[in-house]
Amino acid sequence: MSKVRVLEVKQSVFAENDRHAEALRSELKQKKLFLLNLMSSPGSGKTTTLSRTIEALRDRLRIGVMEADIDSDVDAQTMAALGVKTIQLHTGGMCHLDADMTAQGLEGLETGDLDLAILENVGNLVCPAEFDTGAVKNAMILSVPEGDDKPLKYPLMFQVSDVVLINKIDLIPYVDFDMDACQKRILERNPRAQIFPLCARTGEGVGPWAAWLEEQVRSWQTSPALVRNIEP
Amino acid sequence: MSKVRVLEVKQSVFAENDRHAEALRSELKQKKLFLLNLMSSPGSGKTTTLSRTIEALRDRLRIGVMEADIDSDVDAQTMAALGVKTIQLHTGGMCHLDADMTAQGLEGLETGDLDLAILENVGNLVCPAEFDTGAVKNAMILSVPEGDDKPLKYPLMFQVSDVVLINKIDLIPYVDFDMDACQKRILERNPRAQIFPLCARTGEGVGPWAAWLEEQVRSWQTSPALVRNIEP
Repeated sequence: MSKVRVLEVKQSVFAENDRHAEALRSELKQKKLFLLNLMSSPGSGKTTTLSRTIEALRDRLRIGVMEADIDSDVDAQTMAALGVKTIQLHTGGMCHLDADMTAQGLEGLETGDLDLAILENVGNLVCPAEFDTGAVKNAMILSVPEGDDKPLKYPLMFQVSDVVLINKIDLIPYVDFDMDACQKRILERNPRAQIFPLCARTGEGVGPWAAWLEEQVRSWQTSPALVRNIEP
Repeated sequence: MSKVRVLEVKQSVFAENDRHAEALRSELKQKKLFLLNLMSSPGSGKTTTLSRTIEALRDRLRIGVMEADIDSDVDAQTMAALGVKTIQLHTGGMCHLDADMTAQGLEGLETGDLDLAILENVGNLVCPAEFDTGAVKNAMILSVPEGDDKPLKYPLMFQVSDVVLINKIDLIPYVDFDMDACQKRILERNPRAQIFPLCARTGEGVGPWAAWLEEQVRSWQTSPALVRNIEP
């Protein structure tokens, strides 16, 4: 049965990837470079959120961006227009990034002068959750039109995300979305999750999220010990 | 390198899956059973669209539904409430369904008396596009808030989809979405794609899509030869 065989291979790939991710995180700690892994469904607003975050922080932190995409470079062009260092990673059909690909991306980005590198992962709520990229923190975006039931359906993604941005709150009047129920479901999956409702298009709510991110970067750069990121 | 190894394994899995998918399609042809594979991002409205489609066709076709989900059964409960035969398929973390899993699902559904079986695939624009499930036709939903650039970013999904439903058109006034540009991009990926803009929540536009689907089912049941479905 092909199903069973795939699972066995995935397990050995996971173990190897976990070792690479830990090694990458140690290296980032030594370099005082914070890596944020940003995940979401297709179309939840990763690139717009990233643009707003960069606008909020670019005078306070030196930022670089890695844009993962199956084979286009639409998002990298948007980032480059913001004046930040940008690199496009083509996954060639792969549904996620692993720690090796991330390390290659960081090398290509030339991070020597950066405080914060942001990885925009492939739009997908399943596979990226399974592969530790070596990031210091995982962020995910859930957009309002996707529905408040997503934490029930994609549990691992919510478990591994340190922070959940609930985007497109300007659309709440036009769709069925229960913010309280959504937040409750997120916290059931991951009681430690930070949650920030916002609207990247208008900028509403971006401030608190950007302030939280800056604090994480400062703490990573100054704290003595290496803290584990993901405890699935 | 873990990356290369994954790709090799995937190729052998693809070849085996393609054989299983062809065998399943032949079996469906003999049984005069039409299998529709419905794919989309998380939260684009697969379940609501499916509900409306069933309401439009349940007096004309005998319909059964297979709901794939990583580990919840929210959608299967919705389908069962519509009074159609329903089975829940738990993928146990897998990001797609393959032909074997689909065949198991059909067996569990007991399709002897059905004209149309609909498979609601895992919410994901990447992996499900890579695995032929054995379906007669592939349908995908792109919802308006996801953006008109998705055909650029997830090309394979649009290439393998015989029909694209553009859902949530009621949100067009509140987001940046260029319907003409979107349709053009879809047709660039797949000139044979049928496109139906609709709003599953209100029912607008569901009629033409349901009529197209019914015609496909009738044609499958009555045409003599087996027609290949996917030409990626």
